[in-house]
Amino acid sequence: MDYLLANKQMKVIQSPTAFSFSLDAVLLAHFATVPVKRGSILDLCSGNGVIPLLLSQRTNASICGVEIQERLYDMAKRSVEWNGLDTRIRMICGDLKKMQPVLQHSTFDLVTCNPPYFKTPAPTEYNHNEYLTIARHEVYCTLEDVVKACKLHVRPGGKVALVHRPGRLVDIMTLMRRYRIEPKRMRLVYPKQGREANTLLIEGIRDGKADLKILPPLYIYQENGAYTKEAEEIIYGG
Amino acid sequence: MDYLLANKQMKVIQSPTAFSFSLDAVLLAHFATVPVKRGSILDLCSGNGVIPLLLSQRTNASICGVEIQERLYDMAKRSVEWNGLDTRIRMICGDLKKMQPVLQHSTFDLVTCNPPYFKTPAPTEYNHNEYLTIARHEVYCTLEDVVKACKLHVRPGGKVALVHRPGRLVDIMTLMRRYRIEPKRMRLVYPKQGREANTLLIEGIRDGKADLKILPPLYIYQENGAYTKEAEEIIYGG
Repeated sequence: MDYLLANKQMKVIQSPTAFSFSLDAVLLAHFATVPVKRGSILDLCSGNGVIPLLLSQRTNASICGVEIQERLYDMAKRSVEWNGLDTRIRMICGDLKKMQPVLQHSTFDLVTCNPPYFKTPAPTEYNHNEYLTIARHEVYCTLEDVVKACKLHVRPGGKVALVHRPGRLVDIMTLMRRYRIEPKRMRLVYPKQGREANTLLIEGIRDGKADLKILPPLYIYQENGAYTKEAEEIIYGG
Repeated sequence: MDYLLANKQMKVIQSPTAFSFSLDAVLLAHFATVPVKRGSILDLCSGNGVIPLLLSQRTNASICGVEIQERLYDMAKRSVEWNGLDTRIRMICGDLKKMQPVLQHSTFDLVTCNPPYFKTPAPTEYNHNEYLTIARHEVYCTLEDVVKACKLHVRPGGKVALVHRPGRLVDIMTLMRRYRIEPKRMRLVYPKQGREANTLLIEGIRDGKADLKILPPLYIYQENGAYTKEAEEIIYGG
């Protein structure tokens, strides 16, 4: 069991052999525009539930996490219970492509997702660890499946926030527009000054009007290898 | 007649009542990947020819500029002659939507364009200055016309480099992909640290493989209002 960095009061179960939450999940939980006082949030590809756990610190909305892998779902559920958040966070073990009967459509104020980043490799190239292969590669869901599910479950005017790699930005934008999630805010994350971006945070509004804002860049490390002040505040709390 | 900032040997004719080249044109001429020793470049929406003039300092390729407004075309032609570049830069007064009979298709190694940024307003909202209205608004060509013309004239494997506003990035990416100009390099320009991006530079490759790189951000001004070192080098030469 690890402490969740952004909140030292909270603990999260993870396992190096199955799944450890990443900086990307922490960045997404910080970036997304949350409904503060009430409402509902859906987190897809929820893994060990780190995004619902972090979001619960920023909002009183009810949060639902969907994870397809039983072992990760189980970790998430135990973390939620351990932190006494079971009245606010509900974890579901299931396939995001088949959630309509369970979650209905067009109901959530915000849908977040830290999806698998990589196109499905040939089975011979799979990571030897099946849990990691599924979490990182588009084995069970493609980027289009993700955007489609976001569109299905977010209400009109609601928000969809994703974290991904810059190499997929064109795919993301074309898919978001195809499913009428208009990109409105984007932030690029750079490992340090002078380097190419290695992560992107993007938020769209269902049926929104076209007008993207690109926020100031976020740098993670200083030249000396320490976190920048801003990254430190995001990761360890302000 | 003004000096062209990036090269104090070169002069460019412009007029505050008709058209003055902008920082954006200077940034695009610096950003585009040019064929160095030989080849051919096409600049669309060429205005007073500032991009061809600047590019001629970076390459020995032949350069063709197309501008629809007679008065600006005339300024461009005189600037080219004044600088003794008429053997390397050819200006054409014409409509970029009708250039196929003149320029054939799929022939250029690079196509650049600093297009009008704004959707066409109602005629009552037009800028009182017709030259500026045409240069800034999509009166004679839409963004789709621009991307389509770029695709028509660039050779397979050739490059297309554009400068535009972040608010249109989703339009740009969906149109580039639709016309098989795959975005490969993007750079965002920020007026200063902590502010939203106000300009984007993007380069795609005709029939290229999907894989966008996002370069380090470019800041134009320091906190004290002076140019940053990098902006100064781009604008005044290194």
